[in-house]
Amino acid sequence: MSQDLQYIRLEDAKRLAIDLLRAAGLSEGHAEAIAKSVVSAQRDECYSHGLWRLLGCVATVRKGKVDPKAVPTIDASAPGIVKVDAKFGYSLLAFREGLPELIAKASHLGIAAMAINHCYHFSALWPEVEEIAEAGLVGLAMTPSHSWVAPAGGKKPVFGTNPIAFGWPRVGPHPFVFDFATSAAARGEIELHRRAGKPIPLGWAIDSDGKDTADAAKAMEGAMLTFGGHKGSALSAMIELMAGPLIADMTSAESMAFDDGAGVAPCHGELILALDPKVFLGGAMEEHMRRAEDMFDAITGQGARLPSQRRYDARARNESLGVPVQTTLLDELRALLASLA
Amino acid sequence: MSQDLQYIRLEDAKRLAIDLLRAAGLSEGHAEAIAKSVVSAQRDECYSHGLWRLLGCVATVRKGKVDPKAVPTIDASAPGIVKVDAKFGYSLLAFREGLPELIAKASHLGIAAMAINHCYHFSALWPEVEEIAEAGLVGLAMTPSHSWVAPAGGKKPVFGTNPIAFGWPRVGPHPFVFDFATSAAARGEIELHRRAGKPIPLGWAIDSDGKDTADAAKAMEGAMLTFGGHKGSALSAMIELMAGPLIADMTSAESMAFDDGAGVAPCHGELILALDPKVFLGGAMEEHMRRAEDMFDAITGQGARLPSQRRYDARARNESLGVPVQTTLLDELRALLASLA
Repeated sequence: MSQDLQYIRLEDAKRLAIDLLRAAGLSEGHAEAIAKSVVSAQRDECYSHGLWRLLGCVATVRKGKVDPKAVPTIDASAPGIVKVDAKFGYSLLAFREGLPELIAKASHLGIAAMAINHCYHFSALWPEVEEIAEAGLVGLAMTPSHSWVAPAGGKKPVFGTNPIAFGWPRVGPHPFVFDFATSAAARGEIELHRRAGKPIPLGWAIDSDGKDTADAAKAMEGAMLTFGGHKGSALSAMIELMAGPLIADMTSAESMAFDDGAGVAPCHGELILALDPKVFLGGAMEEHMRRAEDMFDAITGQGARLPSQRRYDARARNESLGVPVQTTLLDELRALLASLA
Repeated sequence: MSQDLQYIRLEDAKRLAIDLLRAAGLSEGHAEAIAKSVVSAQRDECYSHGLWRLLGCVATVRKGKVDPKAVPTIDASAPGIVKVDAKFGYSLLAFREGLPELIAKASHLGIAAMAINHCYHFSALWPEVEEIAEAGLVGLAMTPSHSWVAPAGGKKPVFGTNPIAFGWPRVGPHPFVFDFATSAAARGEIELHRRAGKPIPLGWAIDSDGKDTADAAKAMEGAMLTFGGHKGSALSAMIELMAGPLIADMTSAESMAFDDGAGVAPCHGELILALDPKVFLGGAMEEHMRRAEDMFDAITGQGARLPSQRRYDARARNESLGVPVQTTLLDELRALLASLA
């Protein structure tokens, strides 16, 4: 794929994304929030959540499932909770609108939660926890998705791919950030293997009889597995509960039923926790955050990589080059824009 | 092991534990808090955290590392945080003393955190999150330990076995609870293989050159691995940070250095979060908690087991039988008590 990459300026990538989303009928706020997320991912060479997502974004609007002009409302009446109702629009504007209140509450109390409800979700969680960490707070975010993943010991799907992301503020240029799915692999990865007629590694999925399978087509009909056996399965259940019933929103199974075969971005909730080291540590903050750096040094000092290092390296590399975009994708996006204009 | 089990009454198990701890010099509060935890584990046939731990508990006191009469102090001045200073005593009394304030804060704010500092820690986390869930709240607990575990891609230990536990209140008799180490296996498990001269499964540990090993002795000299590859490693780093520097306490590496070869229970901090569904959900709580039950039903309905089911089954079985104790352990504990009296 790398041979047909073009580099375009960050502003141009953002402009293209915004123009496309506006042409598809999204409000300015939604278009800007989505463009920011997908362009950040593209810049970091995190292509699975990059500009490519705009195609699904537009398709979901066309299918009439998402409200492209939804105006999120905020309920901050519970002292430690910000409830943002996305009103069946995309999640990213809701996140942007609720974030200042989440930070304000966490900065006062030490810890606070933001529940985003009724949102269509397709974006990576790392840009969100990165933003929280850049504001000096610790962030933890999680969402369900659609029920494709079997619980440990089972053979029928119950869980979503249920990502969890964490951000930790650092004195250096970049926060410590991770963001991973609790499924063993991404669903798109299995689909790519199916299309290519290639076997998938054992441990990714089971067939509809509950047997381990290397057959990607059988895997798509069966169930995906969680990472890390029963531990990953337990973690996935926690995400279902905390970012589902606890915040009055759908589990992955309910979200899949709500989709009703449309195959668009899943509609559900998202839970984000923020903890403020300034409140936990007071005047001793600098000393203690320094000890976190000692731990990072112990990891990188032995040649191991921190979770987001690959993205940060790509970001640094592309600062002068621009945003790398696959030529075919760029053509497709431009053609789509032309067809909508 | 099962053939030499004796069943003793719950009160007798608790009496034995309290007498032993009191004879070893622990204050009444510490003795009661510890007895409650280890007897609960023994009753649930969770032997690794059962009465056997009393031996290590007494040994740690004898080595002069722990203060057996430490009186925890509570600082609840930050609105969303309860800080409990265990004063270099065991953790369980500190947990017990801080818990009412944690629940009070979470019930008011919706979410709150409890940081326990300067505690010696040897107990399972599930009794703590189970207690939070029995009070109707969602609980999440985590601690570092001693640095035995290498980060993904590395070969030298940085992380502890870093357990994480979660509790969710249910309408039925038992909450949904999980508690797992983020290491691939327990350190004690590797040590048992070494003593028995048996190979360990690949994926548990690496030798001191960073190579996969099935040799338990080489594993003990090398480093343990996290569960679930880079995802488990990321999670373990999160636990180090949140239950370490964020709460002004030691990382696993610092705790190991503090131990200075004594080989006693690790001294560090613990972070516990509590979230109150009543605040998140208000009058709609029952309806939403019912949806969580639908998810549990989807798991158990296909024959898969919920994380704590084995413990709950044992608990039910032993309600009439009593607490099962290995005869040799019972003899050892009684002999130790006689020697201390």
